[in-house]
Amino acid sequence: MKISILGAGLVGTPMALDLSKDRNFEILVADKNKEPLKRLSALNIQTRVADISSEKSLNDIISDTDIVLSAVPGFMGFKTLKHILEKGKHVVDIAFFPEDLFELDPLARDKNVTAISDIGVAPGMSNILAMHASRQLDRTDSIRIYVGGLPKKRNWPWEYKAVFSPIDVIEEYTRPARFVENGKMVTREALSDPELIDFEKVGTLEAFNSDGLRSLIKTIDCPDMIEKTLRYPGHIDKIRVLKESGFFEEKEMMIHGQKIKPIDFTTGILFPKWKLREGEHDLTIMKIIVKGKKDGKACTYEYELYDEYDPASKTHSMARTTGYTASMAVRMIARGLYKRKGISAPEYVGEQEECVKFMLEGLKERGIRYHEKIIA
Amino acid sequence: MKISILGAGLVGTPMALDLSKDRNFEILVADKNKEPLKRLSALNIQTRVADISSEKSLNDIISDTDIVLSAVPGFMGFKTLKHILEKGKHVVDIAFFPEDLFELDPLARDKNVTAISDIGVAPGMSNILAMHASRQLDRTDSIRIYVGGLPKKRNWPWEYKAVFSPIDVIEEYTRPARFVENGKMVTREALSDPELIDFEKVGTLEAFNSDGLRSLIKTIDCPDMIEKTLRYPGHIDKIRVLKESGFFEEKEMMIHGQKIKPIDFTTGILFPKWKLREGEHDLTIMKIIVKGKKDGKACTYEYELYDEYDPASKTHSMARTTGYTASMAVRMIARGLYKRKGISAPEYVGEQEECVKFMLEGLKERGIRYHEKIIA
Repeated sequence: MKISILGAGLVGTPMALDLSKDRNFEILVADKNKEPLKRLSALNIQTRVADISSEKSLNDIISDTDIVLSAVPGFMGFKTLKHILEKGKHVVDIAFFPEDLFELDPLARDKNVTAISDIGVAPGMSNILAMHASRQLDRTDSIRIYVGGLPKKRNWPWEYKAVFSPIDVIEEYTRPARFVENGKMVTREALSDPELIDFEKVGTLEAFNSDGLRSLIKTIDCPDMIEKTLRYPGHIDKIRVLKESGFFEEKEMMIHGQKIKPIDFTTGILFPKWKLREGEHDLTIMKIIVKGKKDGKACTYEYELYDEYDPASKTHSMARTTGYTASMAVRMIARGLYKRKGISAPEYVGEQEECVKFMLEGLKERGIRYHEKIIA
Repeated sequence: MKISILGAGLVGTPMALDLSKDRNFEILVADKNKEPLKRLSALNIQTRVADISSEKSLNDIISDTDIVLSAVPGFMGFKTLKHILEKGKHVVDIAFFPEDLFELDPLARDKNVTAISDIGVAPGMSNILAMHASRQLDRTDSIRIYVGGLPKKRNWPWEYKAVFSPIDVIEEYTRPARFVENGKMVTREALSDPELIDFEKVGTLEAFNSDGLRSLIKTIDCPDMIEKTLRYPGHIDKIRVLKESGFFEEKEMMIHGQKIKPIDFTTGILFPKWKLREGEHDLTIMKIIVKGKKDGKACTYEYELYDEYDPASKTHSMARTTGYTASMAVRMIARGLYKRKGISAPEYVGEQEECVKFMLEGLKERGIRYHEKIIA
């Protein structure tokens, strides 16, 4: 079976390495940069230097592919997914683009393909497990999701590093956060409602509203749902100072006769400082709390994930937890375990018991453990 | 007597208005911008739109002047002062330029002119009063100067506004701070050694090392001297985040194919937010503590200044306290009270009892009161 992987970044590369271990997969990895492909070539994985944003290049890459795994940057995610669907290919997508993915549902259905989008940690496993827990309950009263990827070493001032595109990180700080409160969808400013939460393995973290629920708002019937992003304490205030001062503005301004967008300048300054470098240790932490009623009694499902950089494979935790979720989803489609046609939000996977089991076991084999606690 | 004022900014304008009240002065105010000159023209003060950075324009303005008052931005201060001295004019300078002013001393002596530089609040009155106090003591053991100009209304995140060029403000945050410790000159990073100090009229402020002692390091024999700048608490940390992240870098970087200096961009973003607008109320606060021995006993001289925006004349406190010090210095030269030739640091004025008295009384007449406290 032929698998094309679009993007050989810090997440794309470990996915390629993981999928290349399956003897029945033939992998092709494409990226516009030659450098990250070298390591994969050295391991006899097929690679291609190509501009994925060009429709022609993209067609060349995916033409004889069975399943496409898209790990392109968010800003080009929607367009890329649309092209893949137009070519009638099954697809697993972790571009985390801002557009509404269900817009592409008619196209995916029309082409009779399976497309699972947003299947990383959160969104991704958070949706799968929230749906899974919700289905065990007779009534779901509240869902809270806390999630963050952080460097192990805390360097002032940001105490933050990411494997993702910096612009996607800043999106979390600027896009208004939608969640459900008393049965109604509400919108609050990103970074709002800070709270301090103690975690056993990392100490106190700071949580703030971020726009992470996305499809869950519509797919789960629950009157109170919220997702918050986790950072080391103090991060929010520093970001808010930049935001309030106009450093994230999209509107061009004139500086010494040159037009420049503040956001472009700011990411230019911050990205080199926020980039998680090779060999730098990081961690991923997630806590999902689903409360409701079962057989007339209060019942709570809790899931906790704590994962760290893997020194053996030299793979970042954020890349492992995101990438292996997506690579397991590729396997799930390849084995015919998940057959739903059209666009699937990850929680659709969470509706199928055997798929949840498959995902959790596959992740466990890769060292990523979700601990379930049921408080009845 | 003819007086030329270079610069009609937020400080230049009130100086012009103040000096225009003296019947024996004929005032000419020059600025490259037409707008601020309009108000002065309306009051029958002579004005001229001119590019002061051009030597020719400058000569035209000052050719038949007796005393020049230079209130140009810091970056063009040194060059402007040099040209004024070359033309053999007496000068009072509040450009607060970074270069060593004593480099121009031979030129000023050669031309037999009186040039008082840095004569605002601090540097300025701080030097005058520190010297004055030191001369009352048999031995000076320590001098501490705390000074800040702040908006009355505290708006998050910066809680800061200035009447000065923003680049001069950022200089305070970046230029290493020189001071005297145990008889030796030491250099510490700007913004270092934060301390919280309670003031009766404004509550708690935050003080940090800034490079404000300048000439005092050499002119006063005292083993412990320090100057600190005052801001509302929390300001330092926000500035340090920008500084540490590279937002104040002078080195050009490439953003979307355009070369840009981070400092230019950052001031472009922050200046509009930091600009003290017409009618916005501000305050100036300064505390000078000079400790030593007199007649074998411990003795402390303290000076405190607290000044606010003047609603009657619609003049900012920072402009009043800085500008009226300089305009009183012009009068002091005009009346032949201060005759020293060459470059004078303000503390040279502090060496002459009658000059100190003249300055303090002139400022008091203008509503700016320095309270002296002697603790013997």
